[in-house]
Amino acid sequence: MSGLNATHDPARRSWVESANAPGSDFPIQNLPFGVFSEGDGAARVGVAIGDMILDLTALEQAGTLVPAPGEWVFGDGVLNPFMALPQHVWSQTRARIAELLDAETGGPEGQILVAQADARMHLPFFVRSFTDFYASREHASNVGSMFRGPDNALMPNWLHLPVGYNGRASTVVVSGTAIRRPNGQLKAPDAAVPHFGPCRRLDIELEMGAVVGTPSEMGRPLTTEEAYDAIFGYVLLNDWSARDIQVWEYQPLGPFQAKAFATTISPWVVTREALEPFRVSTPERAMPLLPYLAESAPNNFDIRLEVDMVPAGGTAKTISRTNYRHMYYSSAQQLAHHSASGCAMCTGDLLGSGTVSGQTPDSLGSLLEITWNGRDPIDLGGVSRTFIEDGDTLTLRGWCEGDYRLGFGDCVGTILPAMQYGI
Amino acid sequence: MSGLNATHDPARRSWVESANAPGSDFPIQNLPFGVFSEGDGAARVGVAIGDMILDLTALEQAGTLVPAPGEWVFGDGVLNPFMALPQHVWSQTRARIAELLDAETGGPEGQILVAQADARMHLPFFVRSFTDFYASREHASNVGSMFRGPDNALMPNWLHLPVGYNGRASTVVVSGTAIRRPNGQLKAPDAAVPHFGPCRRLDIELEMGAVVGTPSEMGRPLTTEEAYDAIFGYVLLNDWSARDIQVWEYQPLGPFQAKAFATTISPWVVTREALEPFRVSTPERAMPLLPYLAESAPNNFDIRLEVDMVPAGGTAKTISRTNYRHMYYSSAQQLAHHSASGCAMCTGDLLGSGTVSGQTPDSLGSLLEITWNGRDPIDLGGVSRTFIEDGDTLTLRGWCEGDYRLGFGDCVGTILPAMQYGI
Repeated sequence: MSGLNATHDPARRSWVESANAPGSDFPIQNLPFGVFSEGDGAARVGVAIGDMILDLTALEQAGTLVPAPGEWVFGDGVLNPFMALPQHVWSQTRARIAELLDAETGGPEGQILVAQADARMHLPFFVRSFTDFYASREHASNVGSMFRGPDNALMPNWLHLPVGYNGRASTVVVSGTAIRRPNGQLKAPDAAVPHFGPCRRLDIELEMGAVVGTPSEMGRPLTTEEAYDAIFGYVLLNDWSARDIQVWEYQPLGPFQAKAFATTISPWVVTREALEPFRVSTPERAMPLLPYLAESAPNNFDIRLEVDMVPAGGTAKTISRTNYRHMYYSSAQQLAHHSASGCAMCTGDLLGSGTVSGQTPDSLGSLLEITWNGRDPIDLGGVSRTFIEDGDTLTLRGWCEGDYRLGFGDCVGTILPAMQYGI
Repeated sequence: MSGLNATHDPARRSWVESANAPGSDFPIQNLPFGVFSEGDGAARVGVAIGDMILDLTALEQAGTLVPAPGEWVFGDGVLNPFMALPQHVWSQTRARIAELLDAETGGPEGQILVAQADARMHLPFFVRSFTDFYASREHASNVGSMFRGPDNALMPNWLHLPVGYNGRASTVVVSGTAIRRPNGQLKAPDAAVPHFGPCRRLDIELEMGAVVGTPSEMGRPLTTEEAYDAIFGYVLLNDWSARDIQVWEYQPLGPFQAKAFATTISPWVVTREALEPFRVSTPERAMPLLPYLAESAPNNFDIRLEVDMVPAGGTAKTISRTNYRHMYYSSAQQLAHHSASGCAMCTGDLLGSGTVSGQTPDSLGSLLEITWNGRDPIDLGGVSRTFIEDGDTLTLRGWCEGDYRLGFGDCVGTILPAMQYGI
């Protein structure tokens, strides 16, 4: 399934002019899949092109696009039926869409385009499960150092396996959804007993999410090659975290309510095929990996990532600039490890990469690290922050730069005050 | 929703004679819901009565049973559509089924009964998510003592909140499904690096599973009263565990592949309403709980539990006898805590109670505890075991005893050898 083809040709241009602008996230080489609606209309599957959306549900009904003869795969308002089709069908469909949008082979006749400005975006797929990993060595070392001291920063297992845990699928939401500050059990270090109340150390985690298309059978593990191919695409992912709830609850079974209240993803799933030109190797191994995690090809991607923070009533400041390529484990390695016990993987499983932190102070993917657990407030133009306050807005952005730019769009959330409850 | 009604009348008898036998798990006072098929037929919803199954899919098609006018809720071969109906409909439907099966008000005419011996049971509901708790104080103390020493046996948070973690829904299987021994990363205490291979410390965890019927909105926590009512019913649950994979992988984010390969549940969902006569209080609090976890009624149940082990080629021995009433936290408290951050709960969410261990050596719910991490092998009539070997069969059983007996049926699994893989 891997390798470059005509859909990666940098010379290709679309008759949708906005797609050819140098700064566009969505040139004809991208063609990410999403789900949108207009007004009170039903949710439809579409592909982003420039500042427009091509309506695939309409194209399937018109017979212009037939991914699975005799079956409606774009009729349910979620990508799952399409992602469950064989991998070569993903590729053929993408090639056909590129033809339809190409300035030379296609044209506006018979197409239904909707302006992104007029559309409401929905969660693009039914999230069957959400698993979150911990694959940035810098992030794991920083957090471990804060919570367990510098001598126990990196656990002994970390260099041997992609550490991960099962998250909560029911609260994965699409970019733009307002996020309510959670309540929970909190215990001050000097308090004898915990109290219940609003989280005071609300944080982001800047991550990428890998979306599983091809399922695997229970009892039948995936190789890293099969795992790479099984991934349909990628989204930006903000794993909102309540640090004060987390530090009290997480031992010995891991994070639970601290991470259960919300996870935001970007609305467009950028296909793994579109990312092919931006493949890079994982960083050099500090320890040899066991054979089941070995990779025969570069399975990471060179994706630039940024976080903007807008304090309530203030103006945006970029608080982190980093790159997905720093991740010690690729998503293919994570997925192979996930299935190693025989765990069945499903269409719609979402795998968070873990917080993407780089080696420099301006490349950290969480406020926990940026402010060193609240010790060093950041200046946001007259106001300062350690953690997130009510009304603050956080935006993740991601894009690849090469012969062309290919972007993920924004992943945005604004914080609402906590509910008065349980006190 | 709580309280006793005519469906709990001990004097009631069924025209299905096997239901009236004193030892039956399925008298007319039980009426648990499950999903079955015959031969190559489609999966159908049914209710167990004595050694028979009443076919609810057929009764709905015939118009004898109409839980939701204008809607087929028993047509999909899973209980989710029925469990998503309002709670009073669960109760009305149960009352109507009792009438149809009652020796005085019902009769065989117009009913379709299938012998349980001729039916194949399926997973009774689509498991939207699986969360596993850790609510037996004895189990948590035993395991903590083994893994972290007696001084750190019970973590400081344990007496304040129901500790839990997100498990893996895709590998929840119905009783009778063969379980393949998992492979994974294992590290001997004296080894410098881990190796990859078959689990050598394969274990059971004897648990009850609470099945969520009524969903909750994101951002809208449940009280313990609402949580109690939201639970549709209960199953037996065996949370198969690979102790050697677990001990290497679990820090700092909790169990992952050690618990991801399989979880077995019993095929019949015993409704919460059927369990009403067996409500008991949780054990006395060692510490006061925060108000959001307070209970206004007894929310535990008096359910006797047993584990039988059959070594490959050998004969069955009961290796544990305990009771669900020992659990320090009720499933209502667990569900209330689960939603406290604003986490949305869904129809089909499965909540494992955590291993049910009592205070005596013959009442422990895992081999880890029974053999004290392999130190004290158990005698199974000429053969001994520390952990589970290939070909061994484990069976959980559960029942209530009062004016009548009400059972859960069996929850069985036999271990297949590990796949040759990844070495």
